[in-house]
Amino acid sequence: STPQATPSRSHSIAVLPGDGVGPEVTQAALTVLDAAQRRFGFGTDRTDVPLGADHYAETGELLTEEMVGRLREHDAILFGAIGSPSVTPGILERGVILALRREMRQAINLRPVRLYPGVPTPIAGLTPERCDLVIVRENTEGAYVAQGSTVHAGTPAQVAVQESVNTWYAVERAVDFAYRLASVRRRRLTLCHKTNVLVEAGKLWTAVMDSVGQRYPEVETDYVHVDAMCMHLPVSPERFDVVVTDNLFGDIVTDLGAVLQGGLGVAASGNLNLDGSAPSMFEPIHGSAPDIAGKGWANPAGACLSLAMMLGHLGEGEAAAAVEAATGAVLAGLPALAGEQMGASTQELGERIAVLVADG
Amino acid sequence: STPQATPSRSHSIAVLPGDGVGPEVTQAALTVLDAAQRRFGFGTDRTDVPLGADHYAETGELLTEEMVGRLREHDAILFGAIGSPSVTPGILERGVILALRREMRQAINLRPVRLYPGVPTPIAGLTPERCDLVIVRENTEGAYVAQGSTVHAGTPAQVAVQESVNTWYAVERAVDFAYRLASVRRRRLTLCHKTNVLVEAGKLWTAVMDSVGQRYPEVETDYVHVDAMCMHLPVSPERFDVVVTDNLFGDIVTDLGAVLQGGLGVAASGNLNLDGSAPSMFEPIHGSAPDIAGKGWANPAGACLSLAMMLGHLGEGEAAAAVEAATGAVLAGLPALAGEQMGASTQELGERIAVLVADG
Ligand SMILES: CC(C)[C@H](C(=O)O)[C@@H](O)C(=O)O
Ligand SMILES: CC(C)[C@H](C(=O)O)[C@@H](O)C(=O)O
Repeated sequence: STPQATPSRSHSIAVLPGDGVGPEVTQAALTVLDAAQRRFGFGTDRTDVPLGADHYAETGELLTEEMVGRLREHDAILFGAIGSPSVTPGILERGVILALRREMRQAINLRPVRLYPGVPTPIAGLTPERCDLVIVRENTEGAYVAQGSTVHAGTPAQVAVQESVNTWYAVERAVDFAYRLASVRRRRLTLCHKTNVLVEAGKLWTAVMDSVGQRYPEVETDYVHVDAMCMHLPVSPERFDVVVTDNLFGDIVTDLGAVLQGGLGVAASGNLNLDGSAPSMFEPIHGSAPDIAGKGWANPAGACLSLAMMLGHLGEGEAAAAVEAATGAVLAGLPALAGEQMGASTQELGERIAVLVADG
Repeated sequence: STPQATPSRSHSIAVLPGDGVGPEVTQAALTVLDAAQRRFGFGTDRTDVPLGADHYAETGELLTEEMVGRLREHDAILFGAIGSPSVTPGILERGVILALRREMRQAINLRPVRLYPGVPTPIAGLTPERCDLVIVRENTEGAYVAQGSTVHAGTPAQVAVQESVNTWYAVERAVDFAYRLASVRRRRLTLCHKTNVLVEAGKLWTAVMDSVGQRYPEVETDYVHVDAMCMHLPVSPERFDVVVTDNLFGDIVTDLGAVLQGGLGVAASGNLNLDGSAPSMFEPIHGSAPDIAGKGWANPAGACLSLAMMLGHLGEGEAAAAVEAATGAVLAGLPALAGEQMGASTQELGERIAVLVADG
């Protein structure tokens, strides 16, 4: 593994470490990226983007148009975590994370739910063979349009209406991606919704499933209500290969999926732009965890597995596989999945993963 | 336990067995009710209400105004399960279950999440001591108003808008109930919502929590996003005492709660009318399970625990406690929680529970 002086390929990455443990896990992931670059002979050009609580406190800025322009010039975004007790909940989430997903047209949020061998799961008797599915979450609309209205605020007559907007355009984009993914996996696609209650949105999702399904006759489909999904997912994840769902249900069931995998610290996600108009963004699904920030207690696995997804997306398939395998190997050896009991700091774990990537 | 010739108290119950395994579990619960009546010296006057798939197939009728009138005359409704593959999904759910909840002003759906000793749970290491919480679900509005609109149906321009309507009136009713319940339990109330995204509804729920909380200074409160709830609930249910949430989130997290308890067959619920204008309704949370109907494979525990809730609601506290204890005892001895492996049929289990209730 000799470093290459002039990498044949280079990718430009916007790095958005964010707040709390975000910078810690991102730093660990970048250490792993360094090792992957040396071993597989590619380069990266990294720009740090200071979005987050501190930047907001200093400048009052969330995602600005100017930043959107700058971010668009990159091949991918590596995201840490955002949020701080000093900022009213919702401000940074909507002003940065959700704004990025929307502005970068990150049509879907892809969340693999995979139990790595040797990783303790809270589900009794669950095995890695039985837990290998992918959740495809529509990432730009539904209840996340965050539109609504309030009348008579502060009185007993207050009424709040909250809207979920669902377009054929965005739903088809997500469903088509999900079919395509299923067709190269175990050829099984499950729609997760609540069509018996959310009738209008349900009709649209069902019609899109049927329509797009014509193009994928080899994929078997079924349907599970979101409430039933929360019962099936923990006890029989082997029922699922690819699950496609709306933005809000996706938010919920993917966090449940993370439980099966051993928790937040392990789970990765990709916010994928599918039309090439802007970069995709890769983030561990945990938050900024301000309570443990600065202690080195965050597990960098989620960030490293997100890095692996990013590498795959950039066409660095070998590097992606190496990072995923190395992360899995290090995870398997941990006495605990987070906190002091991990037996090593965030950065030390990043270095262990990097060593395995370097050694091949 | 000599039967009393003239019961000193009598309650009028509308019995709605429904479809599939509904009549089977209801029959088992009624056997238990017979035993409770004999032992505790009260009577019931039972009217069978034929709502469900067969009735719909024969008459085209869902919940009619005339039936609403008749049901209103009862003290409580004992509900089995509704739904059949022969009826388009959603028709019976909306036309019967949701219509009943609305017409009977069943303001909240109360779902205890309690792991009974000896009952196998899929969550590794979970103990009964750590799993004893109650979820209070708003039961009349939110996304369940099922209002929305579709434009350009059947074209790539199709857009479906789905509304969630939240009123101070209904939210306060649910939140006040939850505080009251928490004040006689472990004095801890958690709001479960998604206030960082569903801003308008979130503001209303938060304002109601603060406002009603003035009246319950002894109750400690906290807030958990619905996605985070799906991560915490399986692994640390001991964090929760009473959880209050909206209709849609309640639908989702209560099914996850059922997993902890050992699954659908064990979980009970009460749809409570809080103003005395109409009867409350008690139902196991499982569906009609048409695939196993007629086999005697359904566990009647959910129906019997719902019966216990009904008895408590009718002021038969001793009977309620006896039915709950007997159900718990029979559950603890089962080799499996459902199916042929239960080792006894639905009705045989009802009889076992009845014997324990009779013997005291
Ligand atoms: C932080 C929040 C806005 C976000 C979401 O709701 O999508 C998070 O929960 C996630 O799933 O990435
Ligand atoms: C059958 C369905 C309409 C119902 C609901 O969504 O409320 C059920 O899931 C429940 O939780 O009682």
